[in-house]
Amino acid sequence: MKKWIRGGTVVTAADTYQADVLIEGERVVAIGYNLDTAGAEEIDATGCYILPGGIDPHTHLDMPFGGTVTSDNFFTGTKAAAFGGTTSIVDFCLTNKGESLQSAIATWHEKARGKAVIDYGFHLMVSDANDQVLDELASVVANEGITSLKVFMAYKNVLMADDETLFKTLIRAKEIGALVQVHAENGDVIDYLTKKALAEGNTDPIYHAYTRPPEAEGEATGRAIALTALASAQLYVVHVSCADAVRRIAEAREKGWNIYGETCPQYLVLDIEDLDRPDFEGAKYVWSPPLREKWNQEVLWSALKNGILQTVGSDHCPFNFVGQKELGRDDFTKIPNGGPIIEDRLTLLFSEGVQKGKISLNQLVDLTSTKAAKLFGMFPQKGTVAVGSDADLVLFHPNVKRTISASTHHMNVDYNPFEGMEVQGEVVSVLSRGSFVVRDKQFVGQAGAGRYLKRSRFTRP
Amino acid sequence: MKKWIRGGTVVTAADTYQADVLIEGERVVAIGYNLDTAGAEEIDATGCYILPGGIDPHTHLDMPFGGTVTSDNFFTGTKAAAFGGTTSIVDFCLTNKGESLQSAIATWHEKARGKAVIDYGFHLMVSDANDQVLDELASVVANEGITSLKVFMAYKNVLMADDETLFKTLIRAKEIGALVQVHAENGDVIDYLTKKALAEGNTDPIYHAYTRPPEAEGEATGRAIALTALASAQLYVVHVSCADAVRRIAEAREKGWNIYGETCPQYLVLDIEDLDRPDFEGAKYVWSPPLREKWNQEVLWSALKNGILQTVGSDHCPFNFVGQKELGRDDFTKIPNGGPIIEDRLTLLFSEGVQKGKISLNQLVDLTSTKAAKLFGMFPQKGTVAVGSDADLVLFHPNVKRTISASTHHMNVDYNPFEGMEVQGEVVSVLSRGSFVVRDKQFVGQAGAGRYLKRSRFTRP
Amino acid sequence: MKKWIRGGTVVTAADTYQADVLIEGERVVAIGYNLDTAGAEEIDATGCYILPGGIDPHTHLDMPFGGTVTSDNFFTGTKAAAFGGTTSIVDFCLTNKGESLQSAIATWHEKARGKAVIDYGFHLMVSDANDQVLDELASVVANEGITSLKVFMAYKNVLMADDETLFKTLIRAKEIGALVQVHAENGDVIDYLTKKALAEGNTDPIYHAYTRPPEAEGEATGRAIALTALASAQLYVVHVSCADAVRRIAEAREKGWNIYGETCPQYLVLDIEDLDRPDFEGAKYVWSPPLREKWNQEVLWSALKNGILQTVGSDHCPFNFVGQKELGRDDFTKIPNGGPIIEDRLTLLFSEGVQKGKISLNQLVDLTSTKAAKLFGMFPQKGTVAVGSDADLVLFHPNVKRTISASTHHMNVDYNPFEGMEVQGEVVSVLSRGSFVVRDKQFVGQAGAGRYLKRSRFTRP
Amino acid sequence: MKKWIRGGTVVTAADTYQADVLIEGERVVAIGYNLDTAGAEEIDATGCYILPGGIDPHTHLDMPFGGTVTSDNFFTGTKAAAFGGTTSIVDFCLTNKGESLQSAIATWHEKARGKAVIDYGFHLMVSDANDQVLDELASVVANEGITSLKVFMAYKNVLMADDETLFKTLIRAKEIGALVQVHAENGDVIDYLTKKALAEGNTDPIYHAYTRPPEAEGEATGRAIALTALASAQLYVVHVSCADAVRRIAEAREKGWNIYGETCPQYLVLDIEDLDRPDFEGAKYVWSPPLREKWNQEVLWSALKNGILQTVGSDHCPFNFVGQKELGRDDFTKIPNGGPIIEDRLTLLFSEGVQKGKISLNQLVDLTSTKAAKLFGMFPQKGTVAVGSDADLVLFHPNVKRTISASTHHMNVDYNPFEGMEVQGEVVSVLSRGSFVVRDKQFVGQAGAGRYLKRSRFTRP
Repeated sequence: MKKWIRGGTVVTAADTYQADVLIEGERVVAIGYNLDTAGAEEIDATGCYILPGGIDPHTHLDMPFGGTVTSDNFFTGTKAAAFGGTTSIVDFCLTNKGESLQSAIATWHEKARGKAVIDYGFHLMVSDANDQVLDELASVVANEGITSLKVFMAYKNVLMADDETLFKTLIRAKEIGALVQVHAENGDVIDYLTKKALAEGNTDPIYHAYTRPPEAEGEATGRAIALTALASAQLYVVHVSCADAVRRIAEAREKGWNIYGETCPQYLVLDIEDLDRPDFEGAKYVWSPPLREKWNQEVLWSALKNGILQTVGSDHCPFNFVGQKELGRDDFTKIPNGGPIIEDRLTLLFSEGVQKGKISLNQLVDLTSTKAAKLFGMFPQKGTVAVGSDADLVLFHPNVKRTISASTHHMNVDYNPFEGMEVQGEVVSVLSRGSFVVRDKQFVGQAGAGRYLKRSRFTRP
Repeated sequence: MKKWIRGGTVVTAADTYQADVLIEGERVVAIGYNLDTAGAEEIDATGCYILPGGIDPHTHLDMPFGGTVTSDNFFTGTKAAAFGGTTSIVDFCLTNKGESLQSAIATWHEKARGKAVIDYGFHLMVSDANDQVLDELASVVANEGITSLKVFMAYKNVLMADDETLFKTLIRAKEIGALVQVHAENGDVIDYLTKKALAEGNTDPIYHAYTRPPEAEGEATGRAIALTALASAQLYVVHVSCADAVRRIAEAREKGWNIYGETCPQYLVLDIEDLDRPDFEGAKYVWSPPLREKWNQEVLWSALKNGILQTVGSDHCPFNFVGQKELGRDDFTKIPNGGPIIEDRLTLLFSEGVQKGKISLNQLVDLTSTKAAKLFGMFPQKGTVAVGSDADLVLFHPNVKRTISASTHHMNVDYNPFEGMEVQGEVVSVLSRGSFVVRDKQFVGQAGAGRYLKRSRFTRP
Repeated sequence: MKKWIRGGTVVTAADTYQADVLIEGERVVAIGYNLDTAGAEEIDATGCYILPGGIDPHTHLDMPFGGTVTSDNFFTGTKAAAFGGTTSIVDFCLTNKGESLQSAIATWHEKARGKAVIDYGFHLMVSDANDQVLDELASVVANEGITSLKVFMAYKNVLMADDETLFKTLIRAKEIGALVQVHAENGDVIDYLTKKALAEGNTDPIYHAYTRPPEAEGEATGRAIALTALASAQLYVVHVSCADAVRRIAEAREKGWNIYGETCPQYLVLDIEDLDRPDFEGAKYVWSPPLREKWNQEVLWSALKNGILQTVGSDHCPFNFVGQKELGRDDFTKIPNGGPIIEDRLTLLFSEGVQKGKISLNQLVDLTSTKAAKLFGMFPQKGTVAVGSDADLVLFHPNVKRTISASTHHMNVDYNPFEGMEVQGEVVSVLSRGSFVVRDKQFVGQAGAGRYLKRSRFTRP
Repeated sequence: MKKWIRGGTVVTAADTYQADVLIEGERVVAIGYNLDTAGAEEIDATGCYILPGGIDPHTHLDMPFGGTVTSDNFFTGTKAAAFGGTTSIVDFCLTNKGESLQSAIATWHEKARGKAVIDYGFHLMVSDANDQVLDELASVVANEGITSLKVFMAYKNVLMADDETLFKTLIRAKEIGALVQVHAENGDVIDYLTKKALAEGNTDPIYHAYTRPPEAEGEATGRAIALTALASAQLYVVHVSCADAVRRIAEAREKGWNIYGETCPQYLVLDIEDLDRPDFEGAKYVWSPPLREKWNQEVLWSALKNGILQTVGSDHCPFNFVGQKELGRDDFTKIPNGGPIIEDRLTLLFSEGVQKGKISLNQLVDLTSTKAAKLFGMFPQKGTVAVGSDADLVLFHPNVKRTISASTHHMNVDYNPFEGMEVQGEVVSVLSRGSFVVRDKQFVGQAGAGRYLKRSRFTRP
């Protein structure tokens, strides 16, 4: 049960070096030259980087949304993730008011069980911080290993929490060692602008962006930060899309506060003009926050480079164009929000970031794996190539050029937002805890092989 | 010629894990469990961290200053460094107007040759960016492997360069791949305030601080950053001491500029009141920039924590109290600037930073070793514990408590600025390229064993 | 019906000069030397400043609050105002959900009618921006001349409006030419902290301050500004108390946005320690926002000096200590919020500001009269000493020293928060539209002489 | 010797009202209705604004520069000023190293004597703050009434002073009550970029802008502010041209520092593309700082609106195109810097600012007259329409539309940078101390009628 990966270049958040990697069972047991590889299966990694398996801290599999359900379930979604070099995800567990947290978590376990081909954990939504919920959270953290709590400042009357809920959650999170995540957009502003647009007959996808201005994201980001500072707690702002939000995170970090930020490939590569594509194609580009004016991209890349943002998640939330996105043909508010990214996250970052000199190779690893492992309590089991860590490894060939397309991707969705884009870099093989999930670009994994990740309490990375 | 370090915990800028380390010759060849250790000398590291050897990017050995010379030469200084867990230094090579750069470098090689017990490189001072100097710099980078250039904005009429010199150096550095360092204090302001203080009969050490206000550092830092941005170059601000300078670096980094900052243990632990110690003891606390009001310490720690500052150097610049510091008894401007820190850098950071929860253990490694290696072109040969890297390793015992004292330190200086301070953590053994320099707290190194480090061109870390 | 004021020094927001002032009927008709004063009553103003009557843009007369009512009605309150050099007030008209705006305004007219001794206008509260209210607002502005609308971001479940209400009000205000005022504190945060304090048995007045931290004010101020910018509207932040809020207003004004700010004498002179006075005396110092740490005072003065804040209102909201403040003996949340300031606003600003060199004499006039007249649509009828303007004039003696005391003040309240404070400057006589209200420090006014002020639409000053 | 101006609308920095103005001798003696106008000459101002005469705080008449001399002397320049509604100027008195200040001032008196048609004062250049100069300054302030000192941070090797000179001047200015002015551009940076451009054969006028980047202005502005703060002194930044400089002034003012800024009409209306006009026409648009990218205009207007900048000067520095600007045909560095603006300042501000809603009418007066009078020690003698003030009055017709042209202007220069521009507003008549200089658009003034202005010490406005 040993594997010997030889000839590759190990890359971690800190290091880049040539060495062989020896796996025994589920873990890496040695890295070096001239290792004792007796009895080990030899795997040739010549020309490849050996990366720690990606950790996608932001996915939405099998999730109900606006009367429909995301098109990837835990099998198709995690399989596609593996093809994209991701070996762990933290999926978002929806709760419903009135329902116990345990019940919500049970539902999510049910969705994942027997399906996931890689390891997975859950973030838990907090929409109503009543006493019972606050009580229950301690056990969620301690027993379920769910150490990240998500609060929505947008989606008024649906997911949105008020400031009291956010503030209580932050204070409780501080006590029990959880990291609070926020979707930071001002839901009241958006609600108003949306109704106004519809009332004026503005129903095209581009109005999704016009009704969710960057100021609404900046404001909510600043508010969440202020409340976090007051609570002396810790905050992770998901899917940061614009300069206004980046600036507020930078200011908070300058003050030494425990504020972290995530952006997503779509905000780094696409822009608001994609929403204006003809023939309702713009619907494929409906995310919340929306794609922004192109100049924001440079701000986001700089923020990744200089440590103002810490992670790149996918916010994978796929809906088919036919039958799902189409729901909003006559009304942009009925277009399900989100898109399929889980498979292309690593390659896009490598191709647009590392290859173009915007981030370093070690930063790539940090942004797509290590920092998420540390922030979300999975380190050092996950997030690095190191002795004793899980053998979640990706053989990545940096020189291959290829074209992204729905016709070749593995996500269960009928389009790809990056269709036709030329990228460099390819995931060749992927191991999860020492077993191949993808080998030489073929799926060899197994539904249900993925294990649930009980995560540790938050500690500052 | 193999060494097998077993039972320790490897710590890098990214990782922390238990594993054995196998050294062959000068390099690490394997890390793992159950390594093939046949023929290897066994070294017990139980209970210890195995850290990459520290890199001190800021030392002044055997350097003339104000009519005297720093009290540590390359033997005593590097020996003390080794005792402090440092295995590489980059020392500051002074140049003189009119003298060729080659000649200055030759002088510095002469100082180090046959004396250094650990590896060393040089930063080169640029005080006059005339055409000849600018020409010569290309060869200095390419042939001497000196890829960092230092410009002084203070010490008027002595070391200070004007803005034109700084700007030209930045532009040239961009072309040839060097990192520009600045001592950022407004020399004109300081010169005026100093003369005024003396004219008013204010000669005590505390006036060293009063005549070098934080605004003068903030201003110069901002100016150097503005010039760097104009030149699209890269800048490393040495010995950042105050909030005003930190704020400017934070703003520049938010803009995505290649601006880096270093602070020193003295600014993290000591403060302006030390300059007011009676019986001329304040002279022991004369650094430039001066120690600041205590509240700045928290700002500096936060800046380390959140990635606004990247390194901690020692600015080791020792002078004996008797015979050297005393030169300024009647005139604080005659007190040689600087103090002995090379030996206590790592322990102070561990004890005051990691132990008190201000930075993480991985950050400690990054701040004292890895980032310096990356910024100054020594990575991955130096700066990490990784297969293929030099076996510059430190066995560090985290639980030992001890007291800093001149009576026990190894620096060639008659006082220690941290005299009597209780610290936690102790360097037990130190290897440089696979050979012990310190073993079980005994010096076993050899004068001249240290090698000159030709460093690579600057690339963004 | 002419009056000739001679020998005084006219002071406006721009000018300071010696000249006689001639009044005919209700207006100033000439200013100069050697005027034709035939038939005019001569008033000697030697040694006095002739100031435009103060405009207090923030009063709460005869207002229900927390089960009690402010202790000054429109007679006692406006009389005291006149003694303090104020000749116009804009009082806050409370609305109730469900009630029509017209009805609320009628109630307020009823309160004032037959009582006010000086002119008065109303701000109108908006708590629920439903379609009917938004419709009605156009007529309120056009017909009632109420051109300022107030929204509360605090007092959860009582006065607090949500962001949608604020945003709608801003958009509507932009259309109809009204200025939106906000009480900017995060009500959710305060509500939580208040309940927590009480639950922990912390009932003393000082907890009023602890449960309303400056961050809650800064956050809400920033939020209101962001919404205003999105609406391209205009905003007036009432009773700014702390540096955090000032900074956000400064940033907004730097961007060219139409953001204005008011502070109050209490924040300039008193501080949080007053809340900790023994024997429940702290209750006299309960304002919302609360008094802040003393260092904020300097920030507020600087903001007045450099034009970041535009006005000083009193937020006069008096409650007797006996019988009213005492309601909160066992529970600080039951202490009625507010205090008596209407009479001491001008003197405090003169004594603490002009006399101590913090603001100029012209700034005093601008801050206490002219800018309020311009922002709230009363200029040039009110707010200046100019030909054609109402003869609302104050003869102010700058050299008299006196002591503030409840035993001598004219407000209908049993204490004075500045009791025992030595101040310089005294209001000698006050004219409202050419008639004396106070003459040689005696009240000679008449209940009901004050007229309702229909105000003009907002234009940028 | 009385004049009665009737039917006009008086406008001051604070007020706008209809009233008659009565002048006796040199001063305004009454403002009002039904004044006693017996024996007074009647002047019909129907339809006109009566503005305080403009104060141009920044002119260069009869000044040597780069081997030539500005084309307007004190006669032609002040005559043109009067046509533009300006009744006082403060001209820049050049000093030469080695020469006594008295001698330089005497030279400037000589230039003005017998020529000026309106009143004038001098700013004094400080290029070398040696002990003799610092001594002499006290008498310059006290006896000459020169209370503003100018320091250049640009024009290396010609006018530029080092930081020590600036710092000493600030400290001295604080002691003696003078306001320090800076030309804030980093001369070292500009010198380098200029030489580089020429060396690369880039000689066209546009390179004037390329070699003086906004960052160089921002940096120097920030530096001057930092030194001023250290000196607790007062600073006036002349000709602010760009957002980078505005931001730094805004930040300083937020801190409560005594920092003031001036911009000029050219920066508000023209932009960098004018420098690229064909046929060497770009030379007409060579100012220092240079014209900026167009987006900066909005930032400057906002800064005027919200009180971040306090004045608009002309920086009138005219050179003929033929024979003077042409000197730089083959080398942009030989183009004399500056242009003719003294005549069009008021109209441009009215037409582009007030008419387009960017500033108010009262702000126009404040920016072009009142604030300069206050900052430079001429108030209330100058800078307002008030009883007792000099009868420096402008009758300005707001509705006339006209076209700016060199063929109709009165400046002694062969082009106008705003040639062909349609503007609204026209100066009809101008009085200086009660005497007409321009009457019904005809010059009726007299060379030598202008008086030298001894100005008061700086006090905060």
